[in-house]
Amino acid sequence: MIRAISVAALTLLPISAAAQDLPTSAYLPLETGLTAAQAALVACAAEGHNVSVAIVGRDGVLKLHLKADNAGPHTVGSAQGKAFTAASMGRDTATIAQAIADNPQNAGMRDMDDRMVILAGGLPIRLGDALVGGIGVGGAPSGDIDATCARKGLDAISAQ
Amino acid sequence: MIRAISVAALTLLPISAAAQDLPTSAYLPLETGLTAAQAALVACAAEGHNVSVAIVGRDGVLKLHLKADNAGPHTVGSAQGKAFTAASMGRDTATIAQAIADNPQNAGMRDMDDRMVILAGGLPIRLGDALVGGIGVGGAPSGDIDATCARKGLDAISAQ
Amino acid sequence: MIRAISVAALTLLPISAAAQDLPTSAYLPLETGLTAAQAALVACAAEGHNVSVAIVGRDGVLKLHLKADNAGPHTVGSAQGKAFTAASMGRDTATIAQAIADNPQNAGMRDMDDRMVILAGGLPIRLGDALVGGIGVGGAPSGDIDATCARKGLDAISAQ
Amino acid sequence: MIRAISVAALTLLPISAAAQDLPTSAYLPLETGLTAAQAALVACAAEGHNVSVAIVGRDGVLKLHLKADNAGPHTVGSAQGKAFTAASMGRDTATIAQAIADNPQNAGMRDMDDRMVILAGGLPIRLGDALVGGIGVGGAPSGDIDATCARKGLDAISAQ
Amino acid sequence: MIRAISVAALTLLPISAAAQDLPTSAYLPLETGLTAAQAALVACAAEGHNVSVAIVGRDGVLKLHLKADNAGPHTVGSAQGKAFTAASMGRDTATIAQAIADNPQNAGMRDMDDRMVILAGGLPIRLGDALVGGIGVGGAPSGDIDATCARKGLDAISAQ
Amino acid sequence: MIRAISVAALTLLPISAAAQDLPTSAYLPLETGLTAAQAALVACAAEGHNVSVAIVGRDGVLKLHLKADNAGPHTVGSAQGKAFTAASMGRDTATIAQAIADNPQNAGMRDMDDRMVILAGGLPIRLGDALVGGIGVGGAPSGDIDATCARKGLDAISAQ
Amino acid sequence: MIRAISVAALTLLPISAAAQDLPTSAYLPLETGLTAAQAALVACAAEGHNVSVAIVGRDGVLKLHLKADNAGPHTVGSAQGKAFTAASMGRDTATIAQAIADNPQNAGMRDMDDRMVILAGGLPIRLGDALVGGIGVGGAPSGDIDATCARKGLDAISAQ
Amino acid sequence: MIRAISVAALTLLPISAAAQDLPTSAYLPLETGLTAAQAALVACAAEGHNVSVAIVGRDGVLKLHLKADNAGPHTVGSAQGKAFTAASMGRDTATIAQAIADNPQNAGMRDMDDRMVILAGGLPIRLGDALVGGIGVGGAPSGDIDATCARKGLDAISAQ
Repeated sequence: MIRAISVAALTLLPISAAAQDLPTSAYLPLETGLTAAQAALVACAAEGHNVSVAIVGRDGVLKLHLKADNAGPHTVGSAQGKAFTAASMGRDTATIAQAIADNPQNAGMRDMDDRMVILAGGLPIRLGDALVGGIGVGGAPSGDIDATCARKGLDAISAQ
Repeated sequence: MIRAISVAALTLLPISAAAQDLPTSAYLPLETGLTAAQAALVACAAEGHNVSVAIVGRDGVLKLHLKADNAGPHTVGSAQGKAFTAASMGRDTATIAQAIADNPQNAGMRDMDDRMVILAGGLPIRLGDALVGGIGVGGAPSGDIDATCARKGLDAISAQ
Repeated sequence: MIRAISVAALTLLPISAAAQDLPTSAYLPLETGLTAAQAALVACAAEGHNVSVAIVGRDGVLKLHLKADNAGPHTVGSAQGKAFTAASMGRDTATIAQAIADNPQNAGMRDMDDRMVILAGGLPIRLGDALVGGIGVGGAPSGDIDATCARKGLDAISAQ
Repeated sequence: MIRAISVAALTLLPISAAAQDLPTSAYLPLETGLTAAQAALVACAAEGHNVSVAIVGRDGVLKLHLKADNAGPHTVGSAQGKAFTAASMGRDTATIAQAIADNPQNAGMRDMDDRMVILAGGLPIRLGDALVGGIGVGGAPSGDIDATCARKGLDAISAQ
Repeated sequence: MIRAISVAALTLLPISAAAQDLPTSAYLPLETGLTAAQAALVACAAEGHNVSVAIVGRDGVLKLHLKADNAGPHTVGSAQGKAFTAASMGRDTATIAQAIADNPQNAGMRDMDDRMVILAGGLPIRLGDALVGGIGVGGAPSGDIDATCARKGLDAISAQ
Repeated sequence: MIRAISVAALTLLPISAAAQDLPTSAYLPLETGLTAAQAALVACAAEGHNVSVAIVGRDGVLKLHLKADNAGPHTVGSAQGKAFTAASMGRDTATIAQAIADNPQNAGMRDMDDRMVILAGGLPIRLGDALVGGIGVGGAPSGDIDATCARKGLDAISAQ
Repeated sequence: MIRAISVAALTLLPISAAAQDLPTSAYLPLETGLTAAQAALVACAAEGHNVSVAIVGRDGVLKLHLKADNAGPHTVGSAQGKAFTAASMGRDTATIAQAIADNPQNAGMRDMDDRMVILAGGLPIRLGDALVGGIGVGGAPSGDIDATCARKGLDAISAQ
Repeated sequence: MIRAISVAALTLLPISAAAQDLPTSAYLPLETGLTAAQAALVACAAEGHNVSVAIVGRDGVLKLHLKADNAGPHTVGSAQGKAFTAASMGRDTATIAQAIADNPQNAGMRDMDDRMVILAGGLPIRLGDALVGGIGVGGAPSGDIDATCARKGLDAISAQ
């Protein structure tokens, strides 16, 4: 039942990569991320809200997480999920949540990846032209407040 | 490609923790939890409903579970999920469910943590000023009845 | 098929909890944890190792995570898993790993909880008499080096 | 591409079930389980060990769980996993663990079901001739001590 | 930090279980289930629909599964999920789906257990007075057709 | 408690399979799939969209995946989920998403299989009379654009 | 940061698939599978063993499952896992288990797919030249006995 | 119970990130990856082995997957798991497997991340000085053969 693979067809692609040709992408250093996360945490704490703040890189991997004392355990997943969603899609999670609310055919977006949380409180991190990750905040009384704190985090590092 | 970490920046935080300074939080003893759970179970049984009752601590870890004979297997996850949600968010799960029904942009809350079940029947446990956990009931014909039984459980330990 | 629950039997437990009676447990503040995590990260960076450092509370919930630039994505789970294991079991993860290596009947310990990683690099955090959590390091060339960095983290907060 | 199903072949089985013919199986009532679990918990507490005790029915569904104050979060899964394994296989989990240690070809047993924990501390519950479930204990310094406490639980209900 | 457990409180429950006292529950024999499943499969095949049929016991454990040739892979989970839901809740899954559609506050029911599929095509199996399991069908062009086939399965064993 | 299985009943089915009688099904060769996937990827790239393209066989197993540089990590699951859904159900995923939006009782379809993503961008692959798999595209600004690229992929192999 | 995709390079593959050219593969009809599974179940029952028997197709999708009355719940996963492993790898699972026992470097095979159970009791199904699936048996006192029953199932359909 | 966060302590870190300062990392373009994957696939096919080949980026996200016709479904996870492991750890998976075989204390490495498969057949991809990902091959009769094919893939792009 084994079917011969057409070697000719599969080898037509040119062998081209040389190390010096490799493209590059910018990334967010941990220190910068920590500055943003602390600013977000402090902004929420100043309003009396115990939150988690997470920052992930463009490829969705966690860079750092800070959970305020007395923030509930669900804030860990909430903050990371919002950060992942914003980083991967390059959009504010509140906007995506609205797009689903406005058009239920989009609800399947919630199932695209187990790590996604489509809920206000996540913002993409753009420095200069580069999308370098996402920040997510969870645990304030509303997603809008979470988003305000996340915005304060981005301001602290002059991100858009 | 390894980028040197700025040691100076990262070590500016003061070294401050001494054991005697540690803050503390109140927690719910197992015995008290068992009293509440049994009261909830009995309240539902008295109405002919076979339910599961779960109690989790403030950090979301299961403290105890009681499943009445003939309660369906889904009541295990139902009760624990409601208890987790109420403990972690510090709110009645019926209120949270209503907040999503009233505003579909909030639906992403369901994805914040796999352990969450946002459905009537979960109540936070507050003793004095302290949020010490959550109680969840599952298996009655409606979430409202589940919540009534959970309330009976809290009454048994004079929780708010 | 519904079998009456013996109400009498289930209500024999005394109703005892009053808010003022609640026991308390000490916990690790975020700031202290951050001090320890940064010290561990810096200790590994000083040796040229890009690692993740995680700190979890006694109940296993993530408090904070720091991932050095260029640390691999597996270090996220590695550090958190070691921290969880050390916090939950109250033991150095290297010791537990050795206990399994010495006695294969113990291998089932690996399946007790999906969050566990039984591998050198995780240490319980004790301040005074209190077990308040765990620290885990992942990404150095060996678990022993990970553990050395974790130990540096504990030293920074004078933990045992 | 749809292939007709041979209706004749599939309908040869006799239609035989009448309600009155249904076989029955014995099950463990919650109260009895609670008696056993409390006895096991107390037995371990008397030795200074904070443990979780779980009891599951023959079909693997959780009946009850008790987690002592200060038992680590991993004891929840540990106790339930041992109880599931003992109930489903009808054997002491220490014996199964030994069978794997003695013969590595058996190690695949660990992957049969995500709920299994093959480690000392789980015992099947037999009352009269009936296998009605399993009890699992987790959190003592060794699986042997866990198993001793579980045995005390069974003694309290005169189970084998 | 170890807090003594009040042994007195926990031992007040009477030690009561004697083997001869064990309650029993009826269960569905495999043969009867197979009769029902084959009838459901044939009923759908007669209409040109390739489906999966699953039967689970009252405790949610799979008893049998039949997947018609050319039924899609998603029918495996669909049929088992509907069967689990009907068996555990003791209700027609179409009715439950309608209850959520009519009242969005109930949507959290979907998260009670990973095994649940709340969608037409699942029916509880009652023989005489006993709820002994559930049957689920997946793969027909609509849930209503799935449910009709499931009903044919129950008719074949004279279940309600 | 062991109940004898009625051997007679279970052996009535005829023993019929002979190797030469086996039915067959057509499948999509990898090369053909690669042609389609590349065409879809190029179609989206020509519009400036970085996407993932996945192709799965009729039985839901991944055949190939291509992720454009700079496509977000969520596109991996998005493309594979849409491809799985289209292949398993034999329908355009946009149509299925619309069926749920039009009739909320159908929302349980989202829970039938963890691999499903019911969202525009997935198309079944039919060659001649045969349903041989599905193609899914994820990462364009809307599901409709994803679907247009997927359609271009099918055109490249003259699939319906 | 978007990098232009080299369209030329990606479109060099020939557009070749025409429906009439599609290769085909043989598959195991449900009826034949049911014959084998029943024979395996009866073979084990005749020796007093309550087992589960599962049959999966070559692509790993469940075709059918039969669980004997009183077989433990873990047999569901055990039988399906063995069947998946044998079908996917085309080898007797006992042989694979031995290969790991003889050479621990192979232990990573256990992590290749969550559905795998590498333990005696699974056999590939070959009819004529075609590998069409796998049969798995779980629940007998040893994997060797499980394998003997599985072999009886294959004999019933004259499979190798 | 809310404990004030020491704002001073948390804001000592300097606000430093400016977009123009961002560090960059090299990445593997899809085309180059496809060249390598096809070469690996062809190398195995030339020996009569139907395999899957996966390539992931340095951060562990799938870039591309090719599954040969008739390769078993487990090869999807096998190839991706090996590629993830090699990319994340920057080491040949055979070497890591050997390190565990030689020292059982290292076995916990298998639990660091669900995506890991520590088994011969995965190689890190280094171009020039940059670690840009991993390649994994699964499905040949032994991991050594898988690794040989993976090596052929790297040769095709002049990677180390």
